[in-house]
Amino acid sequence: MKDIIFYDVPGKTEEGKAWSPKTWITRYVHRPTYARKTSMPNFTFGSASFALNLKGLKYRTEWVEYPDIEALCKRLGAPASDVKADGITPHYTVPIIHDPNTGKFISDSATISEYLDTTYPTAGVRLFPDGSRVLQAAFSSAVASTCQAPLFSVVVLAVCKHLNPRSAEYFRRTREQKLGSKLEDIAPEGTGKGETKWKELEAAMTKIAAWFELGGGQPFAGGNVPVYADTQLAARLMWARTVLGRDSKQWARIKAMNGGRWEKFLQDLEQWSQVV
Amino acid sequence: MKDIIFYDVPGKTEEGKAWSPKTWITRYVHRPTYARKTSMPNFTFGSASFALNLKGLKYRTEWVEYPDIEALCKRLGAPASDVKADGITPHYTVPIIHDPNTGKFISDSATISEYLDTTYPTAGVRLFPDGSRVLQAAFSSAVASTCQAPLFSVVVLAVCKHLNPRSAEYFRRTREQKLGSKLEDIAPEGTGKGETKWKELEAAMTKIAAWFELGGGQPFAGGNVPVYADTQLAARLMWARTVLGRDSKQWARIKAMNGGRWEKFLQDLEQWSQVV
Repeated sequence: MKDIIFYDVPGKTEEGKAWSPKTWITRYVHRPTYARKTSMPNFTFGSASFALNLKGLKYRTEWVEYPDIEALCKRLGAPASDVKADGITPHYTVPIIHDPNTGKFISDSATISEYLDTTYPTAGVRLFPDGSRVLQAAFSSAVASTCQAPLFSVVVLAVCKHLNPRSAEYFRRTREQKLGSKLEDIAPEGTGKGETKWKELEAAMTKIAAWFELGGGQPFAGGNVPVYADTQLAARLMWARTVLGRDSKQWARIKAMNGGRWEKFLQDLEQWSQVV
Repeated sequence: MKDIIFYDVPGKTEEGKAWSPKTWITRYVHRPTYARKTSMPNFTFGSASFALNLKGLKYRTEWVEYPDIEALCKRLGAPASDVKADGITPHYTVPIIHDPNTGKFISDSATISEYLDTTYPTAGVRLFPDGSRVLQAAFSSAVASTCQAPLFSVVVLAVCKHLNPRSAEYFRRTREQKLGSKLEDIAPEGTGKGETKWKELEAAMTKIAAWFELGGGQPFAGGNVPVYADTQLAARLMWARTVLGRDSKQWARIKAMNGGRWEKFLQDLEQWSQVV
């Protein structure tokens, strides 16, 4: 089997190169150590990799800066994942994978996870065990609507600072346009506004922790083995830890929430957290 | 095995006697037809019965009017399920079950479902299959936060009209106090305000339908067999259908949503929908 190629936007440090939550979802599903005997690399640019790690399929990453994604997709013939605000213009995003074994380009982390689990049902972990798809869709939706907004608020400035100059400029310009606000003004450190966002985040994580508490001590949403739903949460935590910095005051705040549950969750996923 | 006793508030018609969504959750888990050989009834007052039907445990219902719940619980020694707004005063609610086989009184539909599945793991359907608890908790939370508010708005007046006079008076008084509004003013039929609630409900059900669509045509959140999470949604739909009336214009609107998915969902659960 040939290597799957995985396209991602790089962070500017080597240890923080893989930082994007959407692409981490895909990275988690892959796990390159499973399938070392097969294949030659092809091409890549991304970090959709929890999904890739969990499936244990051999892959390699091609890194691409934000402003170059659209041109690359057009050159490759890779599909847009969405449309822009006008409802018509195609919007090209990472993660994208190219699977040379089937000739397919797939974009969007959910679609990629679905594709990998369906195409390689016996590889690695089952991302969608029987009877779990509806529940996993609801979990993913609930995680997003619960924690995405406050987590975004407390990390967005750090994301911008974490990117290489060309991507940082693109990220700041597009996000500030969408938000109608300077990134510095979203959750300024040490201000009442900033503290409100942290309180919202703590409330959100406490709600999610309550679901896990009902799991009776099992580490994952999938029980003792992670499933796709776990990547939805893990990718966001990995994003926060990477751009804020493991030793930052901000990550220390998240680590302190809910009895240290979130750092532990990432530790439990460590074996599926390689960046290749 | 002796019959479990199940306490519920009655509606004023025979066919609409079981109407409360919280108690329907418990009713779904029981399914009396499974266990006909065993047991003598004891006492009851409720309708927590999807849970009871799905577990296939023999039970019978004791009906109690709203203003009598607290006195009955105190007489029985049954626990409060919550505290009132002051954070101290115990709040007694249905569903409550009494299991004469263990001597226990259990209140709160989630706690009852958990108790039944743990105490009778091999009876009927597994409400919490391995590795599904966290996902089911998230599904239940997401269903509640997505559809509960708009569904409540469009049914609350019909609930009041559906109750016997003593419960109706109690229901109206306590709900109007909490809402700061006459029940008639929540979603008046044919007004802009009412239509807004219906639009919110349609958007909510469409969001939930999208999770089911990812299930690939399987009827339940649990796949081909219902699980606890299904009762969370089914109980609310059963509540709406019962108090609005199967042949009402309002139920016709819900039936028309999402390609008829919701009536079909209740039909698929028909075998676990007995009222005993």
